[in-house]
Amino acid sequence: MSCPPSTDHDAYRAAGVDLDAADDALRRIQDDVAATYTAGVLQGLGAFGGLFELPEGFTRPVLVASTDGVGTKTSVAAQRSGYRGIGRDLVNHCVNDILVQGAVPLFFLDYVASAKLEPAVIAEVVAGVADACRLNGAALLGGETAEMPGVYRDGELDLVGTVVGIVEKDAIIDGSGVQEGDVLLALASGGLQTNGFSLARHLLAGRYADRLDDGTEVGDALLAPHRSFLPAVRPVLGKGWVHGMAHITGGGLPGNLPRILPAGLGVDLKRGSWPEPLIFDLLRRQGNLNEAAMASAFNLGVGFVLIVSNEREADVREACDEPLYSIGRVTAGAGVRFRD
Amino acid sequence: MSCPPSTDHDAYRAAGVDLDAADDALRRIQDDVAATYTAGVLQGLGAFGGLFELPEGFTRPVLVASTDGVGTKTSVAAQRSGYRGIGRDLVNHCVNDILVQGAVPLFFLDYVASAKLEPAVIAEVVAGVADACRLNGAALLGGETAEMPGVYRDGELDLVGTVVGIVEKDAIIDGSGVQEGDVLLALASGGLQTNGFSLARHLLAGRYADRLDDGTEVGDALLAPHRSFLPAVRPVLGKGWVHGMAHITGGGLPGNLPRILPAGLGVDLKRGSWPEPLIFDLLRRQGNLNEAAMASAFNLGVGFVLIVSNEREADVREACDEPLYSIGRVTAGAGVRFRD
Repeated sequence: MSCPPSTDHDAYRAAGVDLDAADDALRRIQDDVAATYTAGVLQGLGAFGGLFELPEGFTRPVLVASTDGVGTKTSVAAQRSGYRGIGRDLVNHCVNDILVQGAVPLFFLDYVASAKLEPAVIAEVVAGVADACRLNGAALLGGETAEMPGVYRDGELDLVGTVVGIVEKDAIIDGSGVQEGDVLLALASGGLQTNGFSLARHLLAGRYADRLDDGTEVGDALLAPHRSFLPAVRPVLGKGWVHGMAHITGGGLPGNLPRILPAGLGVDLKRGSWPEPLIFDLLRRQGNLNEAAMASAFNLGVGFVLIVSNEREADVREACDEPLYSIGRVTAGAGVRFRD
Repeated sequence: MSCPPSTDHDAYRAAGVDLDAADDALRRIQDDVAATYTAGVLQGLGAFGGLFELPEGFTRPVLVASTDGVGTKTSVAAQRSGYRGIGRDLVNHCVNDILVQGAVPLFFLDYVASAKLEPAVIAEVVAGVADACRLNGAALLGGETAEMPGVYRDGELDLVGTVVGIVEKDAIIDGSGVQEGDVLLALASGGLQTNGFSLARHLLAGRYADRLDDGTEVGDALLAPHRSFLPAVRPVLGKGWVHGMAHITGGGLPGNLPRILPAGLGVDLKRGSWPEPLIFDLLRRQGNLNEAAMASAFNLGVGFVLIVSNEREADVREACDEPLYSIGRVTAGAGVRFRD
């Protein structure tokens, strides 16, 4: 017996998939999954749920968990590059969601469903999930596939992930320390991440082969990876330097920053203080969208925000091994305001 | 700030739902979710991932996690009773999946997606999820909703859940202690649980209003709850009485029992030794299915199996507060054999 692979023979058998045809894909999946196993994974101990022994050394360990999907980015992926990228996106999205509270991932579980299970497609998704798990230090502890004819449209799939991470209780970052005058430091998203795709697909349908000014095809720009911000942020965790963090997902900067601001505080953001990928201006023009609509539909290039005191800005910049953009300041008065 | 509700305003806003119309549903959801909170839930500490402080008193705590969906039972629910029942089914399915290894649930996360988010539908799903979480002692720690036009068929939804539970390392039940001669004790399923619905829907489409011999409508029989076996099994956990347990899901008895049997051992099952709900015979006749096909497609009335030594059978029967059916014995030679 082994720890449950993300996709197992039983699930295929129950779904009526031809196992001979699927065998290559399954072997690849099992190898990919095994490559993610960290020290906590207990193998050989049952095949229903995945088992993970808690790491030692925590005084008051707090688990942080988050479930998410990648939205209709799956549809763009289906028409373009295949599914490996969205497997990675899913993991990184979830890892970023628990990172904002100071947690590092322990393990991940995935769920892939479509009208008809295609072993090669699932192997591709899981390869991407496993890649990103390995890079984030998360074990791919389990998962499920489901064939649901009549529920999904033909050729479409949904992909859902759950991450469980850990943080020492007194190292939780919750925004309560945010003060007026704190600076907002942004990590670049590089693209839409995994939000705003229903609108983007509506606006850009049929134009995926067009080229942006830098020569990138529109479809490729839409599929730009959702990055993990763990490598950049990990060096500042547990030091008390960061007052709050936000992952810029659905709702954009105006939707996500207030989630970590104490009552009565808001932010002033300086337009143009961070690089905006070209795809956003195409969306702006194509949809004739005003700035408020753009900011709540898309991240506009800001993937993740750290809120730090002036005194700690230099330390944080030195610890994070990539560019941090000063995009604004915490101000008195609730609300997210964009200033020129 | 509060712990993330299963469905929050941001998710709705991002999805373009009219918030005034949704407010009642959202208030209900937030109340339902709050009612599941156990001592471990840390409230007021951030709004991205859910936070859960580990219970004290474990020497070598092992986390056990499982992700699953309820399959196309959703489609039957859509046509009949609504979604509250499948919310409960989802939680119970996941709780049973980690129970087989001796784990009790700590928390649960849910994911609901459809082509168009209907707040009343989501409130109904989450009400069911929250009910079952409360009854299983699991906190509903977080969740996500997704509106995915073009991916889901109109009027359909998918529902995915992840449970995280805990077990003391030396109390893990993994089947390694199963021996020839051990007895299989079954807990009754009462119906299909959440597997075999694509086939059942195919065979019984248009017949949901027909009545079984006991007067039950076919649609209601199909929607019979997926029970949690935690209340029955909890009293025997940690005592060393049980050698192995199996939750009878996709693949039926032949698909699930071998997952916990040591190499070289199999089981002989005695036909007729447990009650088979009427719905299974209707499926058998309607599909002209042979016994092998029936057994791998459906649980046939066996929801959960405990494998115990002869010496401990009486103790286990006394501890579990419901009927246990002796359905067979562990034998030499791999394989699941049905005997008359």
